[in-house]
Amino acid sequence: MQRLVISPAQRQDQGIVLTDAQQHYLIRVLRLRKGDRFIAMDGEGGWYVSELEGDLTQAKIVASEHIQTELPKQVTLMAAMPKGSGFEQICLMATELGVTRIVPLKSDRTLLNPSPQKLQRWRRITQEAAEQSEREVVPKILEPVDFSDSLQLPETREAYRYICVARGKAPHLLNCLLDLRLGFDTGQTDPAQHPGIVIATGPEGGWTTQELEQATAAGFIAVSLGSRILRAITAPIVSLSIVAAVSESSVKTKGDNFA
Amino acid sequence: MQRLVISPAQRQDQGIVLTDAQQHYLIRVLRLRKGDRFIAMDGEGGWYVSELEGDLTQAKIVASEHIQTELPKQVTLMAAMPKGSGFEQICLMATELGVTRIVPLKSDRTLLNPSPQKLQRWRRITQEAAEQSEREVVPKILEPVDFSDSLQLPETREAYRYICVARGKAPHLLNCLLDLRLGFDTGQTDPAQHPGIVIATGPEGGWTTQELEQATAAGFIAVSLGSRILRAITAPIVSLSIVAAVSESSVKTKGDNFA
Repeated sequence: MQRLVISPAQRQDQGIVLTDAQQHYLIRVLRLRKGDRFIAMDGEGGWYVSELEGDLTQAKIVASEHIQTELPKQVTLMAAMPKGSGFEQICLMATELGVTRIVPLKSDRTLLNPSPQKLQRWRRITQEAAEQSEREVVPKILEPVDFSDSLQLPETREAYRYICVARGKAPHLLNCLLDLRLGFDTGQTDPAQHPGIVIATGPEGGWTTQELEQATAAGFIAVSLGSRILRAITAPIVSLSIVAAVSESSVKTKGDNFA
Repeated sequence: MQRLVISPAQRQDQGIVLTDAQQHYLIRVLRLRKGDRFIAMDGEGGWYVSELEGDLTQAKIVASEHIQTELPKQVTLMAAMPKGSGFEQICLMATELGVTRIVPLKSDRTLLNPSPQKLQRWRRITQEAAEQSEREVVPKILEPVDFSDSLQLPETREAYRYICVARGKAPHLLNCLLDLRLGFDTGQTDPAQHPGIVIATGPEGGWTTQELEQATAAGFIAVSLGSRILRAITAPIVSLSIVAAVSESSVKTKGDNFA
């Protein structure tokens, strides 16, 4: 069945009021007719099997589905914006990997200053990727923010926070995340209270020494993603792959009593 | 220092004989002069700090370096070719993640039939990515091969082999890989004899039931990469991120005696 993202406000009782653009998409592009069904996703976890009604301006909800495709905890990606169109790839793949929100970072070595159109484009890509990867939630793309301000964002303050560094002797992100789970296993940390994960990845050329110092002072733990040099586009995908894998697998760790 | 990939045959005693294209690159593009230094990588693990000699057709080796940026075991990616230019992104990112060889797969649902030029382009991208990510080895891109033939490739026959599937109830790749390490820990498997890892990822639309049956009959284990639907371009990157992370981290597993 075809999928369509709606805003929560479009849902009214047992029906969905369609915008002009959605009517065009359903009727002209997908060529649906009265009585045809599609899935409406409200981007907040609700999936509704819906049926086009007579005048084609609204649809009737005939069933609501709930498929668990979200990560158990909130994951925030703070990614320095690479030059060119690289951030589009980051938005696309991060969405496939289950990210909750993306913070476009202006770091000392960031050259890109995105236009409002560019931000809109990132949000559109994110929405489409959420539909395609069958997610319930559309990740939020925040306004671009200076690196030093990003360290104080309220959305990320209560989380386990990691900053990815190339070269050097930082522990591997996978080790750090499995150690967290170890904490859950042994009861040192309550999984229900788990405040989520924040991952920061740097620009071409890496973080400056000052940025790294600021981040560690703010409680970020420096981690490695392996011994090769990753591009600014690749590092976010690699780090989120590891976060999602640890969240969704049932890895047996030392304590061996993780459900 | 700038990096240049040479073929092993170009290295002669303490010197490197430069091709016309390499001379052009060093002298016209990078504007190096007599006495200037660069790093020559022979794609087989050798790094040579080299100095341009008088007539600019060869360089003198002044030091050889060895930086460990390779994964401890061979990793083979068998990836069904997505349509368009998607395979370029796969080659690029897989190289950054340490892959040893890439097998372009023609599966039942693969539409792409790449030209020899396309294959050349993939190899060029792979070589450039190996330089940029500071790898010692340039991954091999094999000729495209039919899925059923790929199951019998001699390069992959002696390895732990996994096939990634969407939906369904397969165990997570991370679990399977950590179980392998658990085997090493307890002495059930000798890490020195570890025959490497093979990962197969499917096309848009996924594997056919027949392909999955063939693969399992050939000893492939079906694994999950999480509960969202990944694009054919994203799945290879996610699976290799997990393989590299497990290989390069010092994860404490149940046995807790892994060096």
